[in-house]
Formats: sequence, C-alpha cells, structure tokens
Amino acid sequence: MHAIEKIMARAAGVPRVGAGEIVTVKVDFAEVNDLYLQTIYSFREMGGTSVWDPEKICFVFDHYAPAPTIRSAQIHKEMRGFVKEQGLTHHFDINTGVCHQVMPEAGIVRPGMILVATDSHTTTHGAFGAFGTGVGATDMATILISGEMWMRVPEVMKIEINGTLPQGTLAKDVILHVMGQLGASAAVYKAIEFCGTYVEGLGVSDRMVLCNMAVEMGAKTAFMVPNEAVLSYVNQRYGTDFEVPVTDDDFEYPLSHVFDVSDLPPQVAVPHRVDHVMPIDQVEEVPVHQAFIGSCTGGRLEDIAVAADLLRGKQIHPDCRLVLIPASSEVFLEANQKGYIEDLMKAGATISTPGCGPCLGAHEGVIAEGEVCISATNRNFPGRMGSTGGAIYLGSPAVAAVSALTGKLTDPRKYWGGESV
Amino acid sequence: MHAIEKIMARAAGVPRVGAGEIVTVKVDFAEVNDLYLQTIYSFREMGGTSVWDPEKICFVFDHYAPAPTIRSAQIHKEMRGFVKEQGLTHHFDINTGVCHQVMPEAGIVRPGMILVATDSHTTTHGAFGAFGTGVGATDMATILISGEMWMRVPEVMKIEINGTLPQGTLAKDVILHVMGQLGASAAVYKAIEFCGTYVEGLGVSDRMVLCNMAVEMGAKTAFMVPNEAVLSYVNQRYGTDFEVPVTDDDFEYPLSHVFDVSDLPPQVAVPHRVDHVMPIDQVEEVPVHQAFIGSCTGGRLEDIAVAADLLRGKQIHPDCRLVLIPASSEVFLEANQKGYIEDLMKAGATISTPGCGPCLGAHEGVIAEGEVCISATNRNFPGRMGSTGGAIYLGSPAVAAVSALTGKLTDPRKYWGGESV
Repeated sequence: MHAIEKIMARAAGVPRVGAGEIVTVKVDFAEVNDLYLQTIYSFREMGGTSVWDPEKICFVFDHYAPAPTIRSAQIHKEMRGFVKEQGLTHHFDINTGVCHQVMPEAGIVRPGMILVATDSHTTTHGAFGAFGTGVGATDMATILISGEMWMRVPEVMKIEINGTLPQGTLAKDVILHVMGQLGASAAVYKAIEFCGTYVEGLGVSDRMVLCNMAVEMGAKTAFMVPNEAVLSYVNQRYGTDFEVPVTDDDFEYPLSHVFDVSDLPPQVAVPHRVDHVMPIDQVEEVPVHQAFIGSCTGGRLEDIAVAADLLRGKQIHPDCRLVLIPASSEVFLEANQKGYIEDLMKAGATISTPGCGPCLGAHEGVIAEGEVCISATNRNFPGRMGSTGGAIYLGSPAVAAVSALTGKLTDPRKYWGGESV
Repeated sequence: MHAIEKIMARAAGVPRVGAGEIVTVKVDFAEVNDLYLQTIYSFREMGGTSVWDPEKICFVFDHYAPAPTIRSAQIHKEMRGFVKEQGLTHHFDINTGVCHQVMPEAGIVRPGMILVATDSHTTTHGAFGAFGTGVGATDMATILISGEMWMRVPEVMKIEINGTLPQGTLAKDVILHVMGQLGASAAVYKAIEFCGTYVEGLGVSDRMVLCNMAVEMGAKTAFMVPNEAVLSYVNQRYGTDFEVPVTDDDFEYPLSHVFDVSDLPPQVAVPHRVDHVMPIDQVEEVPVHQAFIGSCTGGRLEDIAVAADLLRGKQIHPDCRLVLIPASSEVFLEANQKGYIEDLMKAGATISTPGCGPCLGAHEGVIAEGEVCISATNRNFPGRMGSTGGAIYLGSPAVAAVSALTGKLTDPRKYWGGESV
C-alpha cells in the first residue's frame, strides 16, 4: 500500500484499502472556517445536538477577519456561540490567521492524521505527511456529528521533482511550472505525492506551497514523506505521539511524472487559468496596479523575507500598491522581529490583518475593473479578487515584490543580489 | 477680532470680519477622502477642467483602505486617475492613514491656514491653530475649481479647561465630559476655542483629540492658541513660513464655559448619543464584545502607548476582541519601534491597516446585532460601526484597553500602575 492508503486503512479500521474502494474513515481533526456558517445550520437540521469530540474540532476566522460587513460579523457571532455551546477546546478568532497556517502552528497537524476542513486548500497539510482534504458544509455537518466521512480511495500520482533551483526561482515557480505542464485537471480526485531530490531538501514553508497548490490540479489530497524539517517542526508543536506512514516498497504508482527544476526560470500563471503558465521572461509587458503577498500559499515568513530582501531601502512604484498580509499573527510577529515588516512598510507596503486578505476578494485589497494584480496566491479566475474585469497573474513572492517596484510584471532575477536572498 | 476671525479676514482679503457676516475666503488646502467620489463628478458637471492649484489639493484613501469592496476599489481607481490627470503634488494612497493624521505629518498643516476637507472631523486641525472645517462634495467641487468658498463668520465659544488630570483620566475623558455637560448641539455653527491651563500644557496628540470632537457639538471649527509643542511639530514638518493669529485683547467672547478637570474620573458616552456621558463608575456592568483603539480620535502613538502599558504581559478576555488600528503608517512604525505593536498583539490584539477602520462601519471590525463595542473613536450613533442592533460606548484608549482585558466596561484606574502609564 501507499502511505496515503495506510492512513486511510488505519482510519477505516481495516487492514487494507485500494484505489477506487469506498471507505468510511474516522476523522482526526475537523476545521470550519468563517465562509461556512451553513455547517452549523446543517448540523442542526440533521438533528445534531453535540459534536462527536470537542477536542477535535475548531473554527478559524480567516476569510473575513476582522469582519468587513455586518453579515460577516453576524457569522462570527453565531460561530462563537456554537464554539461556546459545544465547549470546543480549540478556537481561532480574528486575531490568529489563515487556517492552514494556524493549525500547524498550534500543534494540531502531524503525519498520518486525517484532517478535513471547509477549505479546498486543505491539501496543504500533505506537507506534514497528513491526509488533508476539503469538504463542503453538509459533509462537514455530518463529520461534526459522527466524526466520520466516506471517501473513495484515490489513485496516487507521483510527481518527482529533482534538482536544485537557480537563484531567483522559488517553490511557487516550481508548482506553477508543474501545473502548466500537467494541466488543471491532471489530478482530479487523485492523491499527489511529491518526491524527488528537490522535495526532500525543502523546508516546511516550501513544502506547504507545493501541497497547497495540489488542489489546483484537482487533487483530493497531497502527500510528502516527512523530512527532518517537518519532523522537527511537528515535534516542537505537537509532540512525538504519531506514526509516520511509509509506502511499501512494492507499491506501484499508476501515474507518475518527473521534473528537473535545475534551470527553471521564474514562472507566472497568466489570466484566467492556473495552468496557463509561462516563464516570466516570455510574458509581454504588463502594467501592474497591485501586488499581493499573503494567503495560505504565499504569506509565510520565508515569503515575506524574500520580499523584504528585494525591497529593503527601495520604494515601490507610485502607480502600484503592495498589499502584505502575513499568514498568521505568529508569522507577523516573527517577520516583525526580523525587521521585515518595517522594511516593507518603509518601501510603501500596505500591511493588513493576518488572514486570507484579498485572495478571495472578500476585503483588504479588492481590485477594480481593468486592474492587474500580481499575486503570490493560488487562483486567478475572473472575479477571484474583485472585479471580473480585473486580471490576476500568479507568481512567487519575489515576482510580486519586484513587480511592485517597477509597476509592471518583472523578472526578479534582475533584482537578486542582496545578502540573504 | 478673534484669531479665527483674523484667519478669515486674511483669507477673505478684507481688514475685518465679524460674527454673522458672509465672506468668501481663499482656501489654503483642500482634501478629499475616498467617501467622496461625487466630488469629481460634481467638478465635471460644473464644467471643471483643471483644479485651481495642484499643490494645494490632495486625496487621502482612509475610509476604505485597503479596498474592501469592488465599489471602493473602483472609487480609488477613479480618484487615482483624477490625481494623475490634474497633476496633484500630494497624494495619500492606501498605505498612509487617516487624513487628519497624515496631513499634519506631511507638513501640510500650520497655524493660520484655512483647511477644508470632505470630512466632518476637519475641526481636528484647530489643534495647530488652523481653521479646519468639513464640506460636502458639491462645496468641495466648487473649491477644487475656484480655490474659494463662502462661509458665515462663526461666533466664538470659549471653553476654558483648567487643572491637571488625575491618573487614569485622559484627554478623551475631558472632551466627553465637556460634551456631556454642554450637549451635542451646544456649538452648532460656532467656533470653539479651547483654552485654560489644562489646554496650554497639552501635547499635539491630546490637543487633536479635543479639537477632533468639537464637531460632535456641531462646531464649524475649533481653535487653540499654538503652544510650544505644536510650534515645534509644525516647524519640523512644515517649516516656519506662517503667522500665528492672535486674538485681540479687547475681543469679547459671546459665549464661554469654564471647567476644572482636576478630579475628573474616566468618562464614557453611552449609546446612542455622544453627549449621553457619565463617569465610568456610574455605568452599570456591560459585557463588551469588541474594543477598538484607532481612528482620527484615538489612534495616535500616545493612545497606543497607553493601551500597551495597560495590556503588556496580559491576555485579553476570550469573549472580547481588541481591534488596534494606528492612525497612520508613521504612527504604526513608531509604535512598532517602541514595541507597542508586539506587546498588544501578544496580548491578543487584532492589528489592521492604518486608516479609519471600523469607526464608520466600513470594514476591519464591523459589529453584529446585539454586540457591544467600547471605542476610542468619536461617534456612537446606531449603526455607526455595523448593525443598528449593536451598541457603542465611547471612551478613552485606556477604557477600551482594560475593557478588552475584562470583557466588560471597566474603569482603567484599577489597572493603572505601570511605569510609563
């Protein structure tokens, strides 16, 4: 069996599972974000009175934090009421950050677990060797009541990535390139395992970037064999009470792809498809009105560090905004202690509350008709960040930072050279 | 003549003016905020093609920064277009802060000037010995074209405030007390001069708090004789090329009030009137769901310092949010360098983008039905910060901070005692 199948078999209480089987698994942790008030309504409609385990469920206020509308304030209020009523032991209010960042930080995520959340980017937690997947409100209501859900065991697609990145190319460029090559529907209802020499050497943050974007190829979940960086992170945050699932030597991958990224230039996904990807030096000159560095994809310390190193002592272009939103308050405080927040604000950045920010067009940097945003986030569909008449280019935090500097889509390699970049 | 009359006479090009006269004055500076796109439409409808002086007009994006909606993004876009078209030399985009904070910081404000803005709290600039007043979109369009506006010369109401505040009572408490005593319509279309030993000793920030709230009594403008603190601030920011208007010895105030604040306890304005003011120890126990420290009234360095001193090393109540929004990026950076931002975030505060924040219910901490907010801002009308079913108590930053700590309306004097408080 594959490690992912072993996770599912353990959670289903059966010795073996295989691709295509329907299994009912026990969920290890469930998270509901503030887009999904319907979960509570469905819970009640189904006759739910108390949740299956108040220590294994949390609400995270990230999509609308702090509340930008009366409606979202009302959602938060109702959710807080549910959290109290049910005695949930974990709660992440408006002062915390994006769910996929705060759950690992809080020591919830560990290898071998099944983590479900009302957010498609729950594949992120494959970075930790966890089975993470997104569910809708009705499924989540069932989970809150029963602690269980049914799933079809996904086929595993191996994406082997080898090589060492050249200067100026980041993990985001790698996953954009992979998506561009394989297409947005390449992994529909499949599990993606990322492996190869490039992946083995990655830190926690870059691992999360790759797994985060797996869902943009349709993946049910993502997986990486936990490396030392991850195990150290999890040991500090969660502890040591977990088993690392290991793929059997005789497991045969039904699908596999191999990439070498040693010469990969920075990439961008041009509007309006995540898999419409090209090297940045092949994109025609595009004026940029806003650059956004943030979200569960591009708002971690490493992303902010790259931006700070590229912009320190400089001033962004007067025709471009730079919106910087750390993925969590912990990231904010770390970035602050390292001076990055000050560096970036002095360069002209607009800082805002840790959370999803304008990634989904909810607030904190919505774009207008005709505007172009270069974004370190995960989706560039029409209207994703505001007006359907706007255009979103996806790129690395480095591409976003230097594009803010020049006011047009810019190759970051021309600006590389600071000590820590 | 009174100093205010001298400002108007100078600006009207006449030797004398007196209360009740209609005069046409030349405006020294005009500011348009991002609530007032109509200004540009009116400008065009009136046949405006170029502004009277591109060095004397600015746009400030503060009410909707960063844009929380497509509509506000569109407003910003259209305003940026006007700024470019007209070649305005000053512009304050989403990375700056509240107009009444960024204009003094940028060296625009000085004694004796006439400053108009599309914001009622333009009375704030009386703190600098300037004539500041708010105007609507149509008036502002006229001003953009002509550089002039007509005004009735206001009667001057003298509010003399003497004494030294007891520990735990702040400038905000003083102005709330004054409003409570005189009423919200006490100064309709009058100019308020604040004077007395208390006022003479105030720093720039506290002076701004008093003048800011003058409009809540209906004042057309506010005034204080510039003291050393103000002159030093203006000399550093603007320069020395101004004349300080001086009231003639024989000027007779038609209205005057005298207060002594030596024993004044902390005050709150209870819902839903700014002049429904009482000492905090006379308010019944009120649960608080959100505390807000920010805005043109309560978001300056001194306000944040008080909150940090009261909350350092503590944790806010789990049933209460604390939204902290520095009035400007300069304030943010100063507060950050002093460690206040970190102190407050570690205590559980939610930080957001410098600007007006939830003061007017636009975003960044809107309140739900049934929620109570203690706010260091200026208005507690129903719906001001979100749901009309919410309740807003106005208080000092100290009251807001300690109420976040306890989750109920709390007298800050019980918590006083840190070195720098």
